[in-house]
Amino acid sequence: MFPFKEGLTYARNQWYVAGWSDEFAMNQIRERWILGEPVAMYRTASGVPVAVDGRCPHRNYPMAKGLLRGDNIQCGYHGIEFDPRGVCVRIPSQSMIPAVCHLRSYPLIEQWQLVWIWPGDPALADPALIPSHEELRLQKQGWLATRGFTFELKTRYQLLNENLMDISHLSFLHAGTIGTEAVAATEVILIEGERFLRGTRKMKNDQVTGFFAQVLNYEGKIDRETLIDYYAPGMHVAWEFFMKPGTLDTLVTDDAEANENVLGMYRVHHMVTPATLDTTNYFIGYSRTFARDQDSVTKTMTTVFESVIQQDIAAAEAIENLLNKRGSAPNELLIKADAHSIRGRRRLESLMERERSMTSTAPN
Amino acid sequence: MFPFKEGLTYARNQWYVAGWSDEFAMNQIRERWILGEPVAMYRTASGVPVAVDGRCPHRNYPMAKGLLRGDNIQCGYHGIEFDPRGVCVRIPSQSMIPAVCHLRSYPLIEQWQLVWIWPGDPALADPALIPSHEELRLQKQGWLATRGFTFELKTRYQLLNENLMDISHLSFLHAGTIGTEAVAATEVILIEGERFLRGTRKMKNDQVTGFFAQVLNYEGKIDRETLIDYYAPGMHVAWEFFMKPGTLDTLVTDDAEANENVLGMYRVHHMVTPATLDTTNYFIGYSRTFARDQDSVTKTMTTVFESVIQQDIAAAEAIENLLNKRGSAPNELLIKADAHSIRGRRRLESLMERERSMTSTAPN
Amino acid sequence: MFPFKEGLTYARNQWYVAGWSDEFAMNQIRERWILGEPVAMYRTASGVPVAVDGRCPHRNYPMAKGLLRGDNIQCGYHGIEFDPRGVCVRIPSQSMIPAVCHLRSYPLIEQWQLVWIWPGDPALADPALIPSHEELRLQKQGWLATRGFTFELKTRYQLLNENLMDISHLSFLHAGTIGTEAVAATEVILIEGERFLRGTRKMKNDQVTGFFAQVLNYEGKIDRETLIDYYAPGMHVAWEFFMKPGTLDTLVTDDAEANENVLGMYRVHHMVTPATLDTTNYFIGYSRTFARDQDSVTKTMTTVFESVIQQDIAAAEAIENLLNKRGSAPNELLIKADAHSIRGRRRLESLMERERSMTSTAPN
Repeated sequence: MFPFKEGLTYARNQWYVAGWSDEFAMNQIRERWILGEPVAMYRTASGVPVAVDGRCPHRNYPMAKGLLRGDNIQCGYHGIEFDPRGVCVRIPSQSMIPAVCHLRSYPLIEQWQLVWIWPGDPALADPALIPSHEELRLQKQGWLATRGFTFELKTRYQLLNENLMDISHLSFLHAGTIGTEAVAATEVILIEGERFLRGTRKMKNDQVTGFFAQVLNYEGKIDRETLIDYYAPGMHVAWEFFMKPGTLDTLVTDDAEANENVLGMYRVHHMVTPATLDTTNYFIGYSRTFARDQDSVTKTMTTVFESVIQQDIAAAEAIENLLNKRGSAPNELLIKADAHSIRGRRRLESLMERERSMTSTAPN
Repeated sequence: MFPFKEGLTYARNQWYVAGWSDEFAMNQIRERWILGEPVAMYRTASGVPVAVDGRCPHRNYPMAKGLLRGDNIQCGYHGIEFDPRGVCVRIPSQSMIPAVCHLRSYPLIEQWQLVWIWPGDPALADPALIPSHEELRLQKQGWLATRGFTFELKTRYQLLNENLMDISHLSFLHAGTIGTEAVAATEVILIEGERFLRGTRKMKNDQVTGFFAQVLNYEGKIDRETLIDYYAPGMHVAWEFFMKPGTLDTLVTDDAEANENVLGMYRVHHMVTPATLDTTNYFIGYSRTFARDQDSVTKTMTTVFESVIQQDIAAAEAIENLLNKRGSAPNELLIKADAHSIRGRRRLESLMERERSMTSTAPN
Repeated sequence: MFPFKEGLTYARNQWYVAGWSDEFAMNQIRERWILGEPVAMYRTASGVPVAVDGRCPHRNYPMAKGLLRGDNIQCGYHGIEFDPRGVCVRIPSQSMIPAVCHLRSYPLIEQWQLVWIWPGDPALADPALIPSHEELRLQKQGWLATRGFTFELKTRYQLLNENLMDISHLSFLHAGTIGTEAVAATEVILIEGERFLRGTRKMKNDQVTGFFAQVLNYEGKIDRETLIDYYAPGMHVAWEFFMKPGTLDTLVTDDAEANENVLGMYRVHHMVTPATLDTTNYFIGYSRTFARDQDSVTKTMTTVFESVIQQDIAAAEAIENLLNKRGSAPNELLIKADAHSIRGRRRLESLMERERSMTSTAPN
């Protein structure tokens, strides 16, 4: 599927964000599509999040239209009941329960306010594969993390992934809020990490936008470093350092929290989970080091980030729409700024190709 | 087409309900899609219902957008006029009428307030194949039949057929109105009749729902027998006996009208006519033995039945939607309660297969 | 694609109307789909209309969502900028501009208030192939031409082309406004011109509709000649002469302006430009010889023509809808009045077939 190589769709043996903690409720079942399947999400009385197949195996009725009976989920059509592991515990019209009557149950990990899901082979679901939330600055001393948004987009997910990896679009799509001309004009340096693929831009003595001046409570020129880290398959962390001019050359990243010439740092966490082949779940949170006790700053940042995200969504959906109306897959014209996106795409494609080869050589 | 075997779609040499009598009007043409074709329906001045191809053979314009000229139907685009048999009687722009210019005309039979249509080979249209309306209790002494509803559903028709054949869903989808827990918990006995396939459930000393208590004007426990008769291709008659406790074991069905321990009987007639491969016409009427002179009971029953039917429609459409969004045909998990649906499906499939073999061996 | 022969879709090496002059603006980019591609349309500061590919070659973002920077068009996503010839003049994130980075630029010709576009090989774009606007009576002494409407239709374009070539539908679809019974009843004479295919109908001593009586300021019977000229690929000129009874037999067309028994002539210019395979751009203008200084006549004619055009649109869309819902291509029943449409269709098919043979035999 464009822009992937023919036949590639999803990397399944991976952790994705299934939702925010508060989207897993004790008294309500939520349906969310993940990698082409409906998933029914809820939480047990003791607080454990649950994700099971959102399709009753009996008659394909959406499980999310059913009821919770204690910790169990009951189909709303013929009353078949399953426990949180997906084991069928009751068929009202018969006493015998066939072994094949069960719901697939998804491995979940809850960290900070996020619930991660593993849509692939449960035997391979290693929690250590989830990016460390301390490394991400979602759970780290000196950082305040804020739950952001959930959106469902009418676009194939890779358009969103590649939007996020080339932030030269900040200067145009997001001019005036988070982008200045300098972003696109500055060369990107790519760093191939083991866990993530980083693109970094260093800008000296640049303008500060009105938005950043307000939340940093700072007027004047700045040095600015902008990084975007892609953790395959679907997390992107945009990281910015704002510094007094002259600081950039001597900045030691690990000491930035303690550096008094650093005006502030923030990270936006973009989490992309394929819904179906042409729809996408998109979760956004952010964390910051500055003005952590000021709710008004949180409010301003949330408002501005939402408007920026809506621009990204509109762009991805406009492209999806154009591609569909036009019909055939287009030729791709790549420029230097696409290097990050293309390397990210290759990473994801090789995850998919590895899965395909494992599946095709597996003994039956 | 799922859930049918590959390549099976419609049984054509069968009677289906085309509409209610009052849907065939003398001064208005109605379009209804039946088995993948548009049909133009009206009524002649002498009261005879007419159903002809809803597509002008000349330029594919919908005939229902035309006019009635006496008993003839005139295309609204170029004025070509056809009589009720579909014979072309006028082409305004020429005097010669080519023999191939005609509308297909469908055999119709009007009984009680229903008009039945034969979408297959007219030479095979035997009126005796329509279920006897006396047997159905639509035209029988001691029963009052009420015209119900017409709905067009966004679902393939077989999902609705199979919903109707497994009434164990009453306990869940229709809990509180027509369903009690006992319905699903009671074993179904299948009876393979020549004309219909019957599933029957006998419940002793059961609760009566508030709705039934009201219309039967009876408080207390009841014996209840619930039957559902499937007349292929598309009629289902749900039949219920409400009795004083202790009556069930000695009930003789044919004498039920005269049995004073029988509190009442009613039948709901569900008539399913495929519109296209993914849309369905659904007609509902009902008849009863009790409170036949009380309009308020008719009003209550119509209101409650409509709300119940809306639950069935929502369920079928939710499944259709899930199947489409998911893409591939699912594995089927069948339980005992599906025996009726599956035998009904096989009956319909064998009608289709017989037609296919007749078509493929016919001389050209 | 029905009703064309298998595999034929568009004739590309042809002039089509891209839009009205006022749809090419100096401060706004307009997107219009033409022959399956998005086109971005604007006008330079010196007034030259521009049409370039509406899809940025870099990331498929719609160019119409970008900005004009002087005479250049800048993509709104990553800021790549192109001049009116489609030459890339700036990539903000790099200094080197690859040769393959350009927008296709379409040849345009502006005449009267119309802009014509050539979607095929620019080397073949001969302005002389555009029908003479004097011949069309868009720019001719004694005629007043009025800009009409733009519509985008949800129908394949050939349904509209063939609607326009068989005006026997005037008697039915447009009864009472521009059609009388006589139109369909009158034999059409076909004239195969080199530039156009003409159908002509001569009606003597006919009724005049209320609309024509009003705008011609004439009561009583009339002689009427109705012509429809098809200029392939997509222009149709409907031409009418209204005369005092007895004039028709001696009418010399070229002298009609000077003939005092001619009450008036008008021409409606229908311009059909395929948008995609199932959507169509439709432009309508008209010109007349009578009451040229009366704005109220212009107002009346515009109002009535718009209502008539809406009937044509509704008819074409109803047919498109029926064809899609039904699925397979229908058999065609042709009558004598279709001779014009079918010859027009053959003309267009042979243009497409010629292109196909040129393409397939071209050296690579």
